[in-house]
Amino acid sequence: MIRIRTDIPGPNSFKTIEQLRRKNGGWAVPFPFVHSSQGNGCYCEDVDENKFLDFGSQVATNPFGYNHDEMIAVVKKYSARHPLKFAGQDFIVPEHLNLIDELLSISPKGMDAGFLVNSGSEAVENAIKICMHRRHHMQFSVSFEGAFHGRTLGALSLHHSKSLHRRGFLLESNKELPFDDSAPEVLRELIETNGADKIGFIALEHFQGEGGYRIPSSMMVKKLFVLAQKYNIPYLADEVQSGIGRTGKWWSFEHYGITPNVFSAAKALQVGAVIAPKKDFPDEAGSISSTWGGGHILDMALGIKTIEMIKRDKLLARNNKMGSKILDGLHKIEEISNPRGRGLMIGFDLPDSHIRNMFIIESLQKGLILLGAGERSVRVIPPYIVDQPEIDEGLRVISEVAKKVNSNGFESYGKICEFMDCGTTHT
Amino acid sequence: MIRIRTDIPGPNSFKTIEQLRRKNGGWAVPFPFVHSSQGNGCYCEDVDENKFLDFGSQVATNPFGYNHDEMIAVVKKYSARHPLKFAGQDFIVPEHLNLIDELLSISPKGMDAGFLVNSGSEAVENAIKICMHRRHHMQFSVSFEGAFHGRTLGALSLHHSKSLHRRGFLLESNKELPFDDSAPEVLRELIETNGADKIGFIALEHFQGEGGYRIPSSMMVKKLFVLAQKYNIPYLADEVQSGIGRTGKWWSFEHYGITPNVFSAAKALQVGAVIAPKKDFPDEAGSISSTWGGGHILDMALGIKTIEMIKRDKLLARNNKMGSKILDGLHKIEEISNPRGRGLMIGFDLPDSHIRNMFIIESLQKGLILLGAGERSVRVIPPYIVDQPEIDEGLRVISEVAKKVNSNGFESYGKICEFMDCGTTHT
Repeated sequence: MIRIRTDIPGPNSFKTIEQLRRKNGGWAVPFPFVHSSQGNGCYCEDVDENKFLDFGSQVATNPFGYNHDEMIAVVKKYSARHPLKFAGQDFIVPEHLNLIDELLSISPKGMDAGFLVNSGSEAVENAIKICMHRRHHMQFSVSFEGAFHGRTLGALSLHHSKSLHRRGFLLESNKELPFDDSAPEVLRELIETNGADKIGFIALEHFQGEGGYRIPSSMMVKKLFVLAQKYNIPYLADEVQSGIGRTGKWWSFEHYGITPNVFSAAKALQVGAVIAPKKDFPDEAGSISSTWGGGHILDMALGIKTIEMIKRDKLLARNNKMGSKILDGLHKIEEISNPRGRGLMIGFDLPDSHIRNMFIIESLQKGLILLGAGERSVRVIPPYIVDQPEIDEGLRVISEVAKKVNSNGFESYGKICEFMDCGTTHT
Repeated sequence: MIRIRTDIPGPNSFKTIEQLRRKNGGWAVPFPFVHSSQGNGCYCEDVDENKFLDFGSQVATNPFGYNHDEMIAVVKKYSARHPLKFAGQDFIVPEHLNLIDELLSISPKGMDAGFLVNSGSEAVENAIKICMHRRHHMQFSVSFEGAFHGRTLGALSLHHSKSLHRRGFLLESNKELPFDDSAPEVLRELIETNGADKIGFIALEHFQGEGGYRIPSSMMVKKLFVLAQKYNIPYLADEVQSGIGRTGKWWSFEHYGITPNVFSAAKALQVGAVIAPKKDFPDEAGSISSTWGGGHILDMALGIKTIEMIKRDKLLARNNKMGSKILDGLHKIEEISNPRGRGLMIGFDLPDSHIRNMFIIESLQKGLILLGAGERSVRVIPPYIVDQPEIDEGLRVISEVAKKVNSNGFESYGKICEFMDCGTTHT
């Protein structure tokens, strides 16, 4: 059960937050409380003994919640060793192979190789390299309105060491396709105007995350895929947020009955990964690499355990079942609109950005952690262990807060607004 | 002491390696043995009970060797908790602030903010962003012959979500400067031809790593720095490999008495970081971020402990002392050339690439782990705990193997050549 004992941030959190705000170059509107080591199930505690219900799952990276016995058992297993972090593409640890094996066991047929890296951005980076290294006539790539594929801008372009690190990997410009049913037609025009060989690859989130929790239609995806196949344009699926069972299938592209040429994973996996047929990877030794990729034995062991537990406990089906319950509940709340989702990847909308931001703030003050997405959407992405009592409690807060922030003239106030963007300047 | 009981790879290693070679998309000429959890000090063991002397330190990421008591104590401290990996730029953990505090304590005056990410590449990426976000007229950046600054090619260019993630961050082309005393003059010409405002930033490794373990001259660095200052061109120091005390100072740029505008760190730090004055970071919330950055509490705790131990045990001075001993020893070995280094970042050359590659292979078979760099260089980068007995043992192997691979008609052979590039095709 939620337990809120202080204003947010509480006095102990505030001490750390104040300093971090001054010293962290990347202050990105964080949630203004400081995690303690306490918590259990879907609930985490802060250093002021507040207990939050977490429907944000550490931005979809934490499928088993807080202090899960079996996860702690994995941590304990590694607790008498150091280093836990090897230079994994140069020095081999057994967990590297074991995690690739688990990944391939949940990947479509023909996807017989994986490459492990440090983050979702790095996973997408390497997926791009796999697509590009044989597209010698590439002039541009294609992605979609609302797309988020990571934040890396191209340190490789500063590179003047071994040419094989760079050869074929200098990224050309990108064209934006609409994220709707007109996309295939726009792609067809691009192909006809430019020639398919000028298009390096097409990158799609089959459940768009950061851009607003939008689900592409079956027609959009199938037509895009058919075009890509017909013209041999590599088709890249970005599964960083939507993969590893979040949507009720291992990978969100499976909802469309397609198999991309290459796809990325990270977040719930605990490390970054790119998966493709071995024959499609660059085959020069050292052409792709990563110092720590495939080397963090604890993160990899936790990723292995995550996949094992999803299999053993049949969590894909369970995520669908629990997701349906949440969606049913959201449909009953009048003050929110457009509840949609797959499995435990769920979004809904509020009237505008300001009300959405206040909604996130007020929910947090009531002890419910929710993340925004896009212009005016809210993500509901609880851990995979979520059950009826937490769903009931979460929906109750959502309903209360939705009424509150939609009521005439409501504005958030308090110390919390120094930290979170409510959209109003308090004076 | 080194203990080699089998051919390399041994039979147990071979089973894993064979599979990993098939299933790892990024096979990057790894060292063909599989780490076990055993090892101590500068020695690590493989699953065939071979014991290697590690003068590669997991590509400079492992300053305290294997199973160091104090590192294990940190691991144990976190062993009853899960998750260990938070979404650290959105959700706050105390280790985030503590590691930034430690980093700032070893950084030059005025460097009052840090930003934590997942890897060296991501550190450089964000250092570039810090330089670029106010260079509105930038047309190109400048880096150096032999430069290695990470492998990311620009996933951000696929981005069509929030514009602030991308605004000001689309990287323009790059021009290569020579890595020698002519560089300042070439930079001056670029400035005169193009105008200083067209140059986004200048990026330099003050001890070039991957490119061949080359040390820029004092004249080269000082003149470049003066030019950058005079024309207000942001000066970026990449300390991913050379930082955190490896060269006998906290940062390799300190050997030149300069303070860059921004610098990167990673490897020995256990996470990626970029350090700069707070006022120079992009100030829009969310403009830079990272899901796991600032969130891996165990890696951050190990990074904190690393800095504390370097301070407490005065390891900067010790690295200089031990490095001198190694350099003295290398100077006495006739079959190698150009031994050079700072602290425990040391390189030497062999006559050509083929002989260098055989040197690495033969050293490994004798139980000494050494890494290559550049065309024909070898890195000697032992853990900071290296002492006289390991130095003696390492130098003995280097001397023996240097004689062997330089002798007329010598070629490496054996199963090891299936895995490591000796430069010859064995039939």
